[in-house]
Amino acid sequence: MAEDAVTMDKIVALCKRRGFVFASSDIYGGMSAAYDYGHYGVLLKGNVKNEWWRAMLSERDDVVAIDSAIIQHPKVWEASGHLAGFTDPLVDCKTCKARFRADHLEERAVGLECPRKPSKLPGEGPDCDLTPARDFNLMLKTTIGAVEETGSIAYLRPETAQGIFINFKNALQSLRVKPPFGIAQVGKSFRNEITTKNFVFRMREFEQMEMEFFVPPAEAPQWYESWKAERFDWYQRLGIRPDHLRLREHDADELSHYSSGTADVEYLFPMGWSELEGVANRGNFDLTQHAEHSGEKLEYFDQPTGERYVPHVIEPAAGADRAMLAFLADAYDEDEIGGEKRTVLKLHPRLAPVKVAVFPLLRKDGHPELARELFAALRGTMQAEYDDGGAIGKRYRRQDEIGTPFCVTVDHQSLEDGTVTVRERDSLTQERVHRDELVGHLAARLAAPWRSPKLG
Amino acid sequence: MAEDAVTMDKIVALCKRRGFVFASSDIYGGMSAAYDYGHYGVLLKGNVKNEWWRAMLSERDDVVAIDSAIIQHPKVWEASGHLAGFTDPLVDCKTCKARFRADHLEERAVGLECPRKPSKLPGEGPDCDLTPARDFNLMLKTTIGAVEETGSIAYLRPETAQGIFINFKNALQSLRVKPPFGIAQVGKSFRNEITTKNFVFRMREFEQMEMEFFVPPAEAPQWYESWKAERFDWYQRLGIRPDHLRLREHDADELSHYSSGTADVEYLFPMGWSELEGVANRGNFDLTQHAEHSGEKLEYFDQPTGERYVPHVIEPAAGADRAMLAFLADAYDEDEIGGEKRTVLKLHPRLAPVKVAVFPLLRKDGHPELARELFAALRGTMQAEYDDGGAIGKRYRRQDEIGTPFCVTVDHQSLEDGTVTVRERDSLTQERVHRDELVGHLAARLAAPWRSPKLG
Repeated sequence: MAEDAVTMDKIVALCKRRGFVFASSDIYGGMSAAYDYGHYGVLLKGNVKNEWWRAMLSERDDVVAIDSAIIQHPKVWEASGHLAGFTDPLVDCKTCKARFRADHLEERAVGLECPRKPSKLPGEGPDCDLTPARDFNLMLKTTIGAVEETGSIAYLRPETAQGIFINFKNALQSLRVKPPFGIAQVGKSFRNEITTKNFVFRMREFEQMEMEFFVPPAEAPQWYESWKAERFDWYQRLGIRPDHLRLREHDADELSHYSSGTADVEYLFPMGWSELEGVANRGNFDLTQHAEHSGEKLEYFDQPTGERYVPHVIEPAAGADRAMLAFLADAYDEDEIGGEKRTVLKLHPRLAPVKVAVFPLLRKDGHPELARELFAALRGTMQAEYDDGGAIGKRYRRQDEIGTPFCVTVDHQSLEDGTVTVRERDSLTQERVHRDELVGHLAARLAAPWRSPKLG
Repeated sequence: MAEDAVTMDKIVALCKRRGFVFASSDIYGGMSAAYDYGHYGVLLKGNVKNEWWRAMLSERDDVVAIDSAIIQHPKVWEASGHLAGFTDPLVDCKTCKARFRADHLEERAVGLECPRKPSKLPGEGPDCDLTPARDFNLMLKTTIGAVEETGSIAYLRPETAQGIFINFKNALQSLRVKPPFGIAQVGKSFRNEITTKNFVFRMREFEQMEMEFFVPPAEAPQWYESWKAERFDWYQRLGIRPDHLRLREHDADELSHYSSGTADVEYLFPMGWSELEGVANRGNFDLTQHAEHSGEKLEYFDQPTGERYVPHVIEPAAGADRAMLAFLADAYDEDEIGGEKRTVLKLHPRLAPVKVAVFPLLRKDGHPELARELFAALRGTMQAEYDDGGAIGKRYRRQDEIGTPFCVTVDHQSLEDGTVTVRERDSLTQERVHRDELVGHLAARLAAPWRSPKLG
């Protein structure tokens, strides 16, 4: 299949049809910029997050975890600069009263014409007249405390990173860490996005996977380089094709005033190259800001050398939802088996929502009993499914569509010699494995090195 | 140690000292009713959630997962009744301007006297004069859309359950499920709690583990019984002592008008018996409400029998934070080793944040090299730590405090015969295991049936 045939529409349709992702609150007409994850979406995104934790924490010994509150002290956002500067430029159409992001209008090269003009939205005037752009803060506001009039204004965090910086001292004091070390967090952030498109790529609430790596100032440049390489590599290890990935170093004029280097890991989505993750050398900006605003010393004292310093920070900041979308898009394939079209997700086995499906060939003759027995043995160690509905070919197709790497079928021969058929998703090879060796056989194949079949 | 010596203060102190849980935004003076989870807290609560998923989903074949948005369509809360009825009765003190929950005042038997009167809080008047109780909604409000004046009001979900009901139809259509089946969700919910105490037991934002089990109406009573038993048993399987758990059936006058039965799983916390989880027979109330408010048919059509019905729902609804707190409290112990006091968390190995710690006895003579090698082999399959700091006894104490079931020490003999010492947390037994068998040995011991040593 030609690569350009992987459209966002096809992915969205598969996600709805097979229970990965649904429009949010859809029985009430939906909510813009929000999606609900269904069964396979929960499992797939869960695996993406697990792989992130595995690479960032479990397989290292210099990173610890944190899970900070979503509603933090308002001063956090004063110190971080979000209260003053986390804004989008918006323009209003004076005629139809719609509101748009000025930067998106420019992207779409519609200039100063109202983009809703040709659409069929109600309340739309015949002519559009746009105001100049004004800045609107993207943070969602709420009121905590007893009642609105006496409560205090607070914000839903627009990023998980600040929850890490404000816990820098707690980590130092309780965990015996010393630079270079990292603090990692996975959790939801909220941004009041008003223009949304591209499915789960940009949502009002989304899940981030961020890590702040604190280093002695002189070591910042080398850690910046190594984290860029490591994060770029992570996507490839999990199956993304190299020609669909690029690392784009920001130009000097794109950089924040405190950053001496930022690079985006970009993926070639159906809508074009878009950011998956940013890796930034943030200097000591964040710790210095929070030290100033809180009055706490946020620095490291190195006992052996007697040196005291504010660590510099390298930040790899990824999005779990868009990572999942990239893995989906890259794995999506359509091919033909015996003249029939097949849709298949050629996902890395570690990411696949379901690792194995067990089928009885028939609903009689002892097939279901043995299949149930094998299913029970497998599901203790890997995500497994049992399916006895419809023709065997149909059951294979269903598993192909959700990316299940292995299907096990119990047939007549199984009852005679104790072997079952193991069918592999990508190569379509089938081999007979003895029931006693099935769990070990599958565990070994799931753990084996894997290479995307789309690389040829 | 006498059981009554496990105080909340001791747990809070351990959590801060060893990096389980910190006061939120503490460098800015803290936020009431909020906590940040540190490294070991993330790992511990993560294990609690994993065990829930394992029991509720992976080891069954009649439950699917969902992860719905936190900010849902406002009509969801109209249909569920939260907009009208999810309130706390509050009273104001006209003198000192403080605000309190009327039901908490009654609980504390202070009647109509301002509870702040004897304290040293600033701004407090000499005499207190309380208003009658008024109802305040507990849902946190925000505004979504372009700007406040034109945006629309939305709410942060106060429970995860409604996100399940509104996706009932999506699950039916995409996942080939049929009653009896469940939809499970783990995620954050938000309530504007104004009176908070008891650490992570009651917080403004907290994590729920909820499942809605949809059944044919006639089967509701039997499923209600079996879910009560299963959920009560889950806590015991993970090590909670039976005499610290009870199942309290609600009296008829405590029940919601639509519920034909609700029972709380309660744990004997340091502050007394408190709810860990509620199991409720909710009838068809929720699906009927959402069908009415959305205009969608939320029912099941059983093709073979031609029967069409609105399923009844059994809901086991647990709190991840309070479950973690219960496991911590139940595991907390103080004993003596060789005349020295030891604080130890006798956690179920599946819940323990770290499964094994590896120590070189000395920082020379090849000990660190071998210890590093073993650490690298272990951390691929289980959460592991490496520690070479301080006397070996001190390192054991640190691991005991975070509940690590096994410590492996590399010593002189290890370099000679390849064996290392494996020391067990509860029994304090030590045995020598050959390095080549270490991973398998530990994996087997971690998977073995476990019984709390506090049961004697």
